[in-house]
Amino acid sequence: MKIRKVKKEIRAIGVDDGPFIPHTKGNAKVFGVITRGNYRVEGVIQTEIEIDGFDATEKISDMILNSNHYGQIRVILLNGITFGGFNVCDIDELSNIVKRPVIVIIEHRPDLESIKLALKKNQINWEKKWEIFKKIKKIEEITIKKSPRPIYVHYTSNLTIEIVKEILNLTINIGHIPECIRIAHLIGASFIKK
Amino acid sequence: MKIRKVKKEIRAIGVDDGPFIPHTKGNAKVFGVITRGNYRVEGVIQTEIEIDGFDATEKISDMILNSNHYGQIRVILLNGITFGGFNVCDIDELSNIVKRPVIVIIEHRPDLESIKLALKKNQINWEKKWEIFKKIKKIEEITIKKSPRPIYVHYTSNLTIEIVKEILNLTINIGHIPECIRIAHLIGASFIKK
Repeated sequence: MKIRKVKKEIRAIGVDDGPFIPHTKGNAKVFGVITRGNYRVEGVIQTEIEIDGFDATEKISDMILNSNHYGQIRVILLNGITFGGFNVCDIDELSNIVKRPVIVIIEHRPDLESIKLALKKNQINWEKKWEIFKKIKKIEEITIKKSPRPIYVHYTSNLTIEIVKEILNLTINIGHIPECIRIAHLIGASFIKK
Repeated sequence: MKIRKVKKEIRAIGVDDGPFIPHTKGNAKVFGVITRGNYRVEGVIQTEIEIDGFDATEKISDMILNSNHYGQIRVILLNGITFGGFNVCDIDELSNIVKRPVIVIIEHRPDLESIKLALKKNQINWEKKWEIFKKIKKIEEITIKKSPRPIYVHYTSNLTIEIVKEILNLTINIGHIPECIRIAHLIGASFIKK
């Protein structure tokens, strides 16, 4: 589903993972927060994925498709493409399954060579994960609103950089992270044991 | 800590419980969402209380006192006084421990006689719980903003009905529930298995 005109009160879902113990067997929670525009929280959904597993794309798709909010959601915003360690989300596949464009927000410019080395060293079936990273052809640096800090984005081919900027300007309130991702992160962080 | 002047961007915490299986042994999650004014989510915290237990007051107090947001929080908003079934929160004690006023939002006018019967029938040490309910001397019906639906409130004696109305008008966005409680409820609801 292409976005031609971005409504001011666009419904977006932001996805982030909760805490987990790295390199252990088990699951990590993944939260999705649906917002309208840059402030109103409309819904919270969750799923579980295997730590360092291969099910992020499938589980995130299912979570979105099974939500009552699915019909309203116009765009999917991800906090990076890895969840629960190195469970890599294939955004082209995610976009195809849920029929919505996907934008990935990356806070720091990633070093793909280091990622490759880390995958090789620690991950079973690392080539399968690297295949998804390899598809990232372009990471663009953009500056949003008055934020002094640039962010890096990567997005599915059904979007243009102009539409991406418009969506981010409408979903970011204060700071440089869309509200839906920021709140998904806050929910995840509440699980950290003090 | 008395509130003399209510700031437009008042920091409030809204508390609600997550789902649990009634009349079973175990815990229920309780979420606290800290908002600024009627929209901005500043933080999410959580704790666990015993289903039908006696630790709601203590666990909610600890959750708030241990939060990084504690210093900013001006008022505590509760969605009712029972959490995880009949684990009753004593708002006078809560207010004394955390040194903040407490407002309880009740969606329907409660029938204290039915509550007494239910406590008597199902709860061990029911008198201890009834003691807390008995302290509720006054439940006031108020109408907020343009909402056609009245809500019922009960609050600690360090507040006046005028201050309560002002706080609710500043923390409610659309509808008749303060944003912090509404979002705490949405987070809890995400745990319901489909």
